[in-house]
Amino acid sequence: MTERLLIIGGNAAGMSCASQVRRLRDAADLEIEVVEAGQWTSYSSCGIPYWVGGEVEDADALIARSPADFAAMDIGILLGSRAESIDLAAATVAVSPADRCSDGGDQTTTLTYDRLLIATGSVPLRPPVDGLDAVGVFGAQTIPDADAIRRALDNKPRRAVVLGGGYIGLEMAEALVNQGLSVTVVLADPFPMGSLDEDMGERVCAAMTAMGIDVRTCEPVRGIDVEAGLARAVVTDEGSYPADLVVLGLGVRPNSDLARDAGLRIGTTKGIEVDDTMHTPTHENVYAAGDCIQTRNRITGHPVAIALGTHANRQGRVAGTNIGGRPARFEGVLGTAVTKVGNCEIGRTGLSTMDAELAGYSIETTLLESTVKAGYYPEAGKLAVKLLTERQTQRILGGQIVGGPGSAKRIDVLATAIWAQLTAAEFAAVDISYAPPFSPVFDAVVLAARKAAGR
Amino acid sequence: MTERLLIIGGNAAGMSCASQVRRLRDAADLEIEVVEAGQWTSYSSCGIPYWVGGEVEDADALIARSPADFAAMDIGILLGSRAESIDLAAATVAVSPADRCSDGGDQTTTLTYDRLLIATGSVPLRPPVDGLDAVGVFGAQTIPDADAIRRALDNKPRRAVVLGGGYIGLEMAEALVNQGLSVTVVLADPFPMGSLDEDMGERVCAAMTAMGIDVRTCEPVRGIDVEAGLARAVVTDEGSYPADLVVLGLGVRPNSDLARDAGLRIGTTKGIEVDDTMHTPTHENVYAAGDCIQTRNRITGHPVAIALGTHANRQGRVAGTNIGGRPARFEGVLGTAVTKVGNCEIGRTGLSTMDAELAGYSIETTLLESTVKAGYYPEAGKLAVKLLTERQTQRILGGQIVGGPGSAKRIDVLATAIWAQLTAAEFAAVDISYAPPFSPVFDAVVLAARKAAGR
Repeated sequence: MTERLLIIGGNAAGMSCASQVRRLRDAADLEIEVVEAGQWTSYSSCGIPYWVGGEVEDADALIARSPADFAAMDIGILLGSRAESIDLAAATVAVSPADRCSDGGDQTTTLTYDRLLIATGSVPLRPPVDGLDAVGVFGAQTIPDADAIRRALDNKPRRAVVLGGGYIGLEMAEALVNQGLSVTVVLADPFPMGSLDEDMGERVCAAMTAMGIDVRTCEPVRGIDVEAGLARAVVTDEGSYPADLVVLGLGVRPNSDLARDAGLRIGTTKGIEVDDTMHTPTHENVYAAGDCIQTRNRITGHPVAIALGTHANRQGRVAGTNIGGRPARFEGVLGTAVTKVGNCEIGRTGLSTMDAELAGYSIETTLLESTVKAGYYPEAGKLAVKLLTERQTQRILGGQIVGGPGSAKRIDVLATAIWAQLTAAEFAAVDISYAPPFSPVFDAVVLAARKAAGR
Repeated sequence: MTERLLIIGGNAAGMSCASQVRRLRDAADLEIEVVEAGQWTSYSSCGIPYWVGGEVEDADALIARSPADFAAMDIGILLGSRAESIDLAAATVAVSPADRCSDGGDQTTTLTYDRLLIATGSVPLRPPVDGLDAVGVFGAQTIPDADAIRRALDNKPRRAVVLGGGYIGLEMAEALVNQGLSVTVVLADPFPMGSLDEDMGERVCAAMTAMGIDVRTCEPVRGIDVEAGLARAVVTDEGSYPADLVVLGLGVRPNSDLARDAGLRIGTTKGIEVDDTMHTPTHENVYAAGDCIQTRNRITGHPVAIALGTHANRQGRVAGTNIGGRPARFEGVLGTAVTKVGNCEIGRTGLSTMDAELAGYSIETTLLESTVKAGYYPEAGKLAVKLLTERQTQRILGGQIVGGPGSAKRIDVLATAIWAQLTAAEFAAVDISYAPPFSPVFDAVVLAARKAAGR
């Protein structure tokens, strides 16, 4: 008999799962149906700022695979359909149109499943202030969000305020600078990029300031000044920042309400609890993956909820492999990430100093400044590498990079070293490449490890 | 009593050793004297093509540390002094001026040592043909070589022929293209970059051709056509290639003659034999480091002689640490290297298919094509990644990358994975970074490993 897999959420985790399952089991063996509240599948949320900024001209470019592509793979998609509730005992999901007319009757339908994947993603954080629903206040996560900002840009706004200084805040700030706006970034933290250490975050702050962004740290937003339904300014304890448009770039939290309401276990991080095979601990036929789950930090083993497309794709694939009948495990995360704001690139992996202290590690930190290319080569920008090592073992626990063009992707070398549990001395001995257009004789990551090992 | 360290060769290995020793032992404890045949110390040989090409305007930029800098560290340098012979029994080195006048008497002086480091580097390979001494034929290794080419460029030459298609050949070809010349590269091998597999070398060949370089493969040079003492053309079995200037970019061999004549052991690779502490096996107070030695491949354990600045610097440092009284070992090489020709970047590490077959490994190869950035991001160039894995264990043995700007430095991630002895599946699970300006959701190196693991 044909088994039936229902997937709630048609983005990174959900569609990676669907694709992987289909590679392993055909439609006669397993039917796949995906319920997606929006009008798109598998689009690059990470590409949103680049569409806003104009690097990408057409939203279609952000869509990796369309519903038609999935249909050709025998993967059915219900677009514009919101999962309202899950009945775990009956193995059904109640679904209704995402945009119900107020005068519509009860259009809820009930879908059955043999196996269920919850891939509901994340919801943007909203500051606890009034005025967020005014005209001129925009989200920064979805295609409709970006479409709205692009249409607002047609009115030639001059000033933008971005709330939040994490990845999304920085990338939206860059996008709006690229569109010619005067940009203020308002954040509650003492420095942007809160997953970095303060000294590295301050380098990011300096780079943002140098590119003309007004960065307001330690200023939690207190309200949006609204006139005639239109946002006019962002208000903090320190001042009022006039804005023709306001962008909410405060990050996200796991979208786990549906799972919680169904009775599934939710972790301390607010993410859905799953094991390394993406199974929920209480229901063998229910899986979850992506931004909505709680996963584990590979170093500490502690639960974390980190919204990154790479993790979501990997987790979806692991779920899909298991549903497809082959063993697969998700091996945990280091939270490796890169981003950029103007010419300032940022990379991070593993534990920050705060992460390490919270987890009880005794650490040493090493800061090394060098150049991206040989010092004498044209456009040899500067970069700073920070390494965190465990005091007793010298094992590398974390790495951070802030620097000029070409610097940040070096973080992958550190991620690999941390993954393989190398000590600073072991990593310093690795035969890393060199040529003048690519690095000084010893790459900054090697010199940082050598310095750490030399203590 | 003050000990005396004599170093033959004042470049990467020699001066790294000197600097490291001085960090650990002061001048009252150990005297350091360096004998250098040329007029410079510690210059970047790898930077020579970029001086020729005009990216670097001044040769001084290539000099990391001058003799005056070393003098300030109590490191004495005899410039223009050639070591003629080593008397191991007497622990002396005979030295004479590098540019002796023909009517000069015997100006040989004898220097004593307690410890000796031989860091004589490499000598350029020369094809076995006539005409190499004609005006218009240039080396590509030293500051005088580059200075001569730059002066020749003042005469507005139109056509250049580069002999050799390895790193130096490619880099010199790029340099001469950048100087506006029409460039032909003549090589005996069937593809450029002989340390790559043929399919990857052919990609390099295609990129060179696309940038207007005439690449002549499988054409060993048979002679230089000389008229009135002036090189006019390079002759092969297939044709005659007119040249206003001819550049010898055929690579190098270990400069081990001095050591061999002294009675030190020379390996099968023609490099001086040393152990992992850089000691010669027969003389406890004699060390060797850099291009002149034989080292070992970390994967196979087999002896190799690879001329790379990174290795030379590391080996010099290891020798210096040991002479300085602390234990240090050189951990072997993967032959990790990067270079570029125009917009084509090239990286390689570990074993090539030929290396692996010669060493008796049963391997599988995986080729993966992707983009450097997210496909929709501007200037997302293509790249190809080739992985070599051991058939039984799936351990990664080698990696090769050929691609557009921003691609080649990914080779360091593979070098780290190989160093840590990760399998393809283990590496595919590593939490590698992603953002649209930096890579697709899954970096090409991860996808290549996933594909290799999925066999």
